[in-house]
Amino acid sequence: MLPFARVTIIGLGLIGSSIARAVRAHMPTVRLTGYDADADVRATVDRLQLCDDVTESAGAAVIDADLVILCVPVGAMAAAAAELAGDLPADAIISDVGSSKAEVLRVLTEALPGATIIPAHPVAGTERSGPEAGFATLFHKRWCIITPGHGADPAAVQRVSEFWRRLGADVETMAPEHHDRVLAVTSHLPHLIAYTIVGTASDLEEVTQSEVIKYSAGGFRDFTRIAASDPTMWRDVFLTNREAVLDMLQRFSEDLTALQRAIRLGKGDDLFDHFTRTRAIRRGIIEQGQDDPAPDFGRSHE
Amino acid sequence: MLPFARVTIIGLGLIGSSIARAVRAHMPTVRLTGYDADADVRATVDRLQLCDDVTESAGAAVIDADLVILCVPVGAMAAAAAELAGDLPADAIISDVGSSKAEVLRVLTEALPGATIIPAHPVAGTERSGPEAGFATLFHKRWCIITPGHGADPAAVQRVSEFWRRLGADVETMAPEHHDRVLAVTSHLPHLIAYTIVGTASDLEEVTQSEVIKYSAGGFRDFTRIAASDPTMWRDVFLTNREAVLDMLQRFSEDLTALQRAIRLGKGDDLFDHFTRTRAIRRGIIEQGQDDPAPDFGRSHE
Repeated sequence: MLPFARVTIIGLGLIGSSIARAVRAHMPTVRLTGYDADADVRATVDRLQLCDDVTESAGAAVIDADLVILCVPVGAMAAAAAELAGDLPADAIISDVGSSKAEVLRVLTEALPGATIIPAHPVAGTERSGPEAGFATLFHKRWCIITPGHGADPAAVQRVSEFWRRLGADVETMAPEHHDRVLAVTSHLPHLIAYTIVGTASDLEEVTQSEVIKYSAGGFRDFTRIAASDPTMWRDVFLTNREAVLDMLQRFSEDLTALQRAIRLGKGDDLFDHFTRTRAIRRGIIEQGQDDPAPDFGRSHE
Repeated sequence: MLPFARVTIIGLGLIGSSIARAVRAHMPTVRLTGYDADADVRATVDRLQLCDDVTESAGAAVIDADLVILCVPVGAMAAAAAELAGDLPADAIISDVGSSKAEVLRVLTEALPGATIIPAHPVAGTERSGPEAGFATLFHKRWCIITPGHGADPAAVQRVSEFWRRLGADVETMAPEHHDRVLAVTSHLPHLIAYTIVGTASDLEEVTQSEVIKYSAGGFRDFTRIAASDPTMWRDVFLTNREAVLDMLQRFSEDLTALQRAIRLGKGDDLFDHFTRTRAIRRGIIEQGQDDPAPDFGRSHE
């Protein structure tokens, strides 16, 4: 028994197009409809035949859907929801893939009064953007966090959970506010820091940009990967999960000041102790299959 | 014409053992001698047959060498040099692989008066440590920076450069002080920040360590790789390149404060502009072959 028979994806970038490919791979009988506000993206999705139908409007895309997934930047959720509100079937479930959840739940509830809204966040992605960057296995063994609002229909939560399991994801449910704090530290703060250091490095005068690029294998290059992520998506994440991000940033800054002080005062033991305990987390991530155990990310040295 | 006929490696961890393997692969007629202060490491290197000889003392290892490479943590350079000073042949060249160069040049010059000292830094490594973690291709297409002191013998610089080219590295020469500023931003600051954020994440109370591990695929896991690097090595790097690291850290903190302010004030355009210009550096790194172009570091999604 498939959880949904007619799935509509609004927004066909990296995540939306990966969902389309994964649905095709794992639930081939599902009727897939897609819409994207960008005509070029629609044409690409048509050419790649990722959906059964690509429509010219959001309303036409949802008219007979039983699941609608909004895969647009968090800041565009309200407008996308308003655009399809008039055509959304009463029994459809509306979900999304946004990276901040309390704000998304709020704006969707406001834009779609009475609709069954079950927000979700697949914790997966790459630094690439657009419909050609997607792939069917993106969600395999990655977590998808379902963040239903207070009083959400348990049956609807179950169906959305089952949908993501079918795409290969492991599913967890938590309150939107807790999600936002967890992701502030595991995703939003790392992106903010990566964007910052890449900016710092490119602004130096006595060290040229070409030197930064040349000698990036000493550690810097690992930061550039996530600092190449989609700017619109990330702008919206920081603006919509502001409180949690600023709080985590405050803690990070305090910890950085402590290490800075240890360096200035030559406290080698403090540095050594700190650098030792951070190894355990890496081990945990590898043991739980959330990263590749190959050294150096399995980079080729040939 | 080989640049050296008898090479001695003092310190047989990741880098020292990789040099041994690379010498075997690329200059098989070179006579290789190794020494490590740790008897277990010596036994492992013996078992793996990485050197022609593994000696029981540093002095015995260098007695007929024409190149001696110190592959010990930067803080252990002075002691390692003092240990072998009495047995170092007058015409031998002494080099190293330390990550901070002005301080290393200073302590080696002090410990080995009159010796020909040509420091070097291969910008390559992985998060693994020890003789079993090394591999022969570690230096392929990576930069090795030679940092001769003022008035160093050009012929000696040439021979050390040629040695590294034979191991597959690209060679660049620069002043030790400039090296230390370049590496402060491309390597030392990234490591310090990675160590900090992994520490911050593991100290949170309302977000558990198991949640941090579970949802690390959102970006955090990229930081854990370099935060798993050798604690002794990194303690010494920060203590010996203190001024440059503290200066870069100061710039980074200012930039982070600016982004923090943009988030607090809801300045989306500022965030977007910053996040857009950081993409160019990633492109440069990939075009110059310093990182793998595969998305998501080529991680398997199967």
